[in-house]
Amino acid sequence: MTDGVRAPRTLTVIPVTGLPEVGRGADLAGLICEATALCDGDVVVVTQKVVSKAEGAVEAVDADDPLSHKSIVERESVRVLRRRGDLVISETRHGFVCANAGVDLSNVERGTAALLPEDSDRSARRIRDGIRARAGVRVGVVVSDTFGRPWRRGVTDVAIGSAGIRPVVDLRGTRDAYGRELQVTEVAVADEVAAAAELVMGKATGVPVAVVRGLDPSVHTDEPASVSRDLLRPPTDDLFR
Amino acid sequence: MTDGVRAPRTLTVIPVTGLPEVGRGADLAGLICEATALCDGDVVVVTQKVVSKAEGAVEAVDADDPLSHKSIVERESVRVLRRRGDLVISETRHGFVCANAGVDLSNVERGTAALLPEDSDRSARRIRDGIRARAGVRVGVVVSDTFGRPWRRGVTDVAIGSAGIRPVVDLRGTRDAYGRELQVTEVAVADEVAAAAELVMGKATGVPVAVVRGLDPSVHTDEPASVSRDLLRPPTDDLFR
Repeated sequence: MTDGVRAPRTLTVIPVTGLPEVGRGADLAGLICEATALCDGDVVVVTQKVVSKAEGAVEAVDADDPLSHKSIVERESVRVLRRRGDLVISETRHGFVCANAGVDLSNVERGTAALLPEDSDRSARRIRDGIRARAGVRVGVVVSDTFGRPWRRGVTDVAIGSAGIRPVVDLRGTRDAYGRELQVTEVAVADEVAAAAELVMGKATGVPVAVVRGLDPSVHTDEPASVSRDLLRPPTDDLFR
Repeated sequence: MTDGVRAPRTLTVIPVTGLPEVGRGADLAGLICEATALCDGDVVVVTQKVVSKAEGAVEAVDADDPLSHKSIVERESVRVLRRRGDLVISETRHGFVCANAGVDLSNVERGTAALLPEDSDRSARRIRDGIRARAGVRVGVVVSDTFGRPWRRGVTDVAIGSAGIRPVVDLRGTRDAYGRELQVTEVAVADEVAAAAELVMGKATGVPVAVVRGLDPSVHTDEPASVSRDLLRPPTDDLFR
């Protein structure tokens, strides 16, 4: 890999507005292509919420019974790391560690909960392939979700699925400005892209898609690369599980 | 606070190139103003490395003796969370939890190590005040550093200091697109800004400053707000310490 040196380029992060309400079976790639003009090399960031809605990963909950939500959280968890009050930090069956197994009651209809997509990398691939078929452009796709983290307050958006990009860029063997081999080797570009996209989406504005334009071309790849393959730390390699 | 609804705006992330090598006593605000034209409402992201160099937070190490680096790491740590091989995850005296207490051997001269700035929020305020005095513009400033995290591979840039912005935007009491009060309430905007900036800086390109233009104006504030005050989770509130 020769992409250690990413030349400085200006990046643009564009909110995609005007998408209709997304329901089960919605053609996200088609809706995105109708709402905005994409270019080769763009990375399209799509929030988990609309992906889950389009894929029907939405389940009825009794809005007046907290146990109803809780039982879904337990079912979606394979390992509970911490509990405090109603909060559960667990590992989902996909391998994500997050609050409440990613089961979310906000920005969905009352009486329903949005689950994580069954396979967010596959979701990203479908959107990427759909955009290519529809608009003839080669883009990367990131499916993003909002996670908390230890030690720091607040949430940030991270990547839970990707297609067409390297979610982690490996700088091993490249040299710093002093010619010393870099010790910090792997940059989680997909998470940084998701975070940048959140800045134009907000949580309350209902903008579920953003386009990140101007990323270094070396981030793009047609080789196998995905969040589950490259970005999730295996439990055996993890000091905090 | 009425900034829950951030209207969609396009964001631009601009690498600042052409900065000279930064040494002890360098006037970072002046160098930044010479290198780029800033506007009111910009957020200027400056990497820890150049801040530490300008402030002289650099220490001699014996490059051939790993114990030399290690003894600085131990001294800068107030609480060790995990050890594996040469890696120490610890809480620094500033309250950051990170690898090797933020003591870094890359992008500094051989035989030296860069420590974290003594008070990165103060560093950010100085740069902000200097830019205002010099160029007459009101900007936010984020001092960024590169941290790993549990559960996910790769590093991302986060904020270790800030001035002129709310590092965490509180959405409590605002409503989602369905009129439901948002449960996820605090967005770590400063970390997302640092992450977005990293995408144009890279690790090997030697770009230590970036400008984030187009953030929602409500992120800016003249009220007291800083990383140590707003973004660091107190140990008592932390499930992973």
